[in-house]
Amino acid sequence: MELQEVMRTTFAARNFTDEPVSDALVGKILDNARFAPSGGNRQGWRVIVVRKAATRKRLLELIEPTFQRYWAQMQAGEAPFNTVNPSQVTEAQIAATEPPMEFVRKVAQAPVVLLVFVDLSVVAAFDSAAERISVIAGASVYPFVWNILLAARNEGLGGTLTTFVGAKGGELQALLGVPEQMAFAAMLPLGRPVKQLTKLKRKPVPEFAVLERWDGTPLEF
Amino acid sequence: MELQEVMRTTFAARNFTDEPVSDALVGKILDNARFAPSGGNRQGWRVIVVRKAATRKRLLELIEPTFQRYWAQMQAGEAPFNTVNPSQVTEAQIAATEPPMEFVRKVAQAPVVLLVFVDLSVVAAFDSAAERISVIAGASVYPFVWNILLAARNEGLGGTLTTFVGAKGGELQALLGVPEQMAFAAMLPLGRPVKQLTKLKRKPVPEFAVLERWDGTPLEF
Repeated sequence: MELQEVMRTTFAARNFTDEPVSDALVGKILDNARFAPSGGNRQGWRVIVVRKAATRKRLLELIEPTFQRYWAQMQAGEAPFNTVNPSQVTEAQIAATEPPMEFVRKVAQAPVVLLVFVDLSVVAAFDSAAERISVIAGASVYPFVWNILLAARNEGLGGTLTTFVGAKGGELQALLGVPEQMAFAAMLPLGRPVKQLTKLKRKPVPEFAVLERWDGTPLEF
Repeated sequence: MELQEVMRTTFAARNFTDEPVSDALVGKILDNARFAPSGGNRQGWRVIVVRKAATRKRLLELIEPTFQRYWAQMQAGEAPFNTVNPSQVTEAQIAATEPPMEFVRKVAQAPVVLLVFVDLSVVAAFDSAAERISVIAGASVYPFVWNILLAARNEGLGGTLTTFVGAKGGELQALLGVPEQMAFAAMLPLGRPVKQLTKLKRKPVPEFAVLERWDGTPLEF
């Protein structure tokens, strides 16, 4: 497919047909995704390809409490788990929330689930000493993660970049035997989407791009 | 261009011809890149398009001391700025290092330089309370950042994802008038590459992908 079409139609797919996704197909997708950039070309990413039912069941158990919390924050009109505005949602409110668990169940039941980790011993994270979150630590893994979803789309598959399970990073790493210095980056369910969306809703360019300074002229073109 | 060709040939371009990159072209690139995913589709990214000489000069001043430190760590065989293995390089060694500053100068002198920030008030960062770096905070901005470079390649342009200036995030935000809650994510020089590379060196799939567990069988296909 043409890049432009792939970019504009790679949506967050969560409903998949039962059609299996073979190792050959996963391999083909990763064989294209691996050309992503990383700091010093260190390629600190590692992928675990999960199909076993017992592992999926445990993944779902790790995700559910976080999804419950997420849903309660969403219901309250918050941007969940952000580091600027502390959540006003109480534990009692969270406990009383009944989130649509099928939303995460479908993800855990995808034909194949990829777990992506990144080796923190090769990733630059300049502002680790600062109080704010180091966004930069993700610069050497998410181009690769996103490449996986673009390459999957090119094969007629779909998926979603999910991070819920990251809230239980320690338990996840114990489940899969992942060493401490590897950080969880993404969980990617992959499969053939029940329906391929083609009209994605995004802000137009002048709403997010400006010339020269933060208060500069919006970029019109 | 075909997705597969774009993915496999989008290299880290740092040498550009003098050919200008118009707002129309930057707009076209961003108009494709904006279809990237983000948590809750919140699209917290913002782009500042820099061409002014005074701003570039200041960007370079902010980058140089970090590049000096980076180069000294590289010379010592370290993975610069990682959070697992503390650097053994001394301040005296850093001061004595003479890095190839033209490497960063060329970046600052690209036909156009994009600075990408992300709004931390809409980004999920689950493990903000943990001691380790939250890689996840980057999940809602680097797919967009990487889309910019892929879309640029599709237009015959090139660029690089650089983060050096992030070490002076406060000064950078003061320079461009960027509010505190926006985190620096990437600096992207863009232009027409002097030479288009087509053979990128990356590890084969079985070296980074395994089945079911960390110690599982490598994915062969």
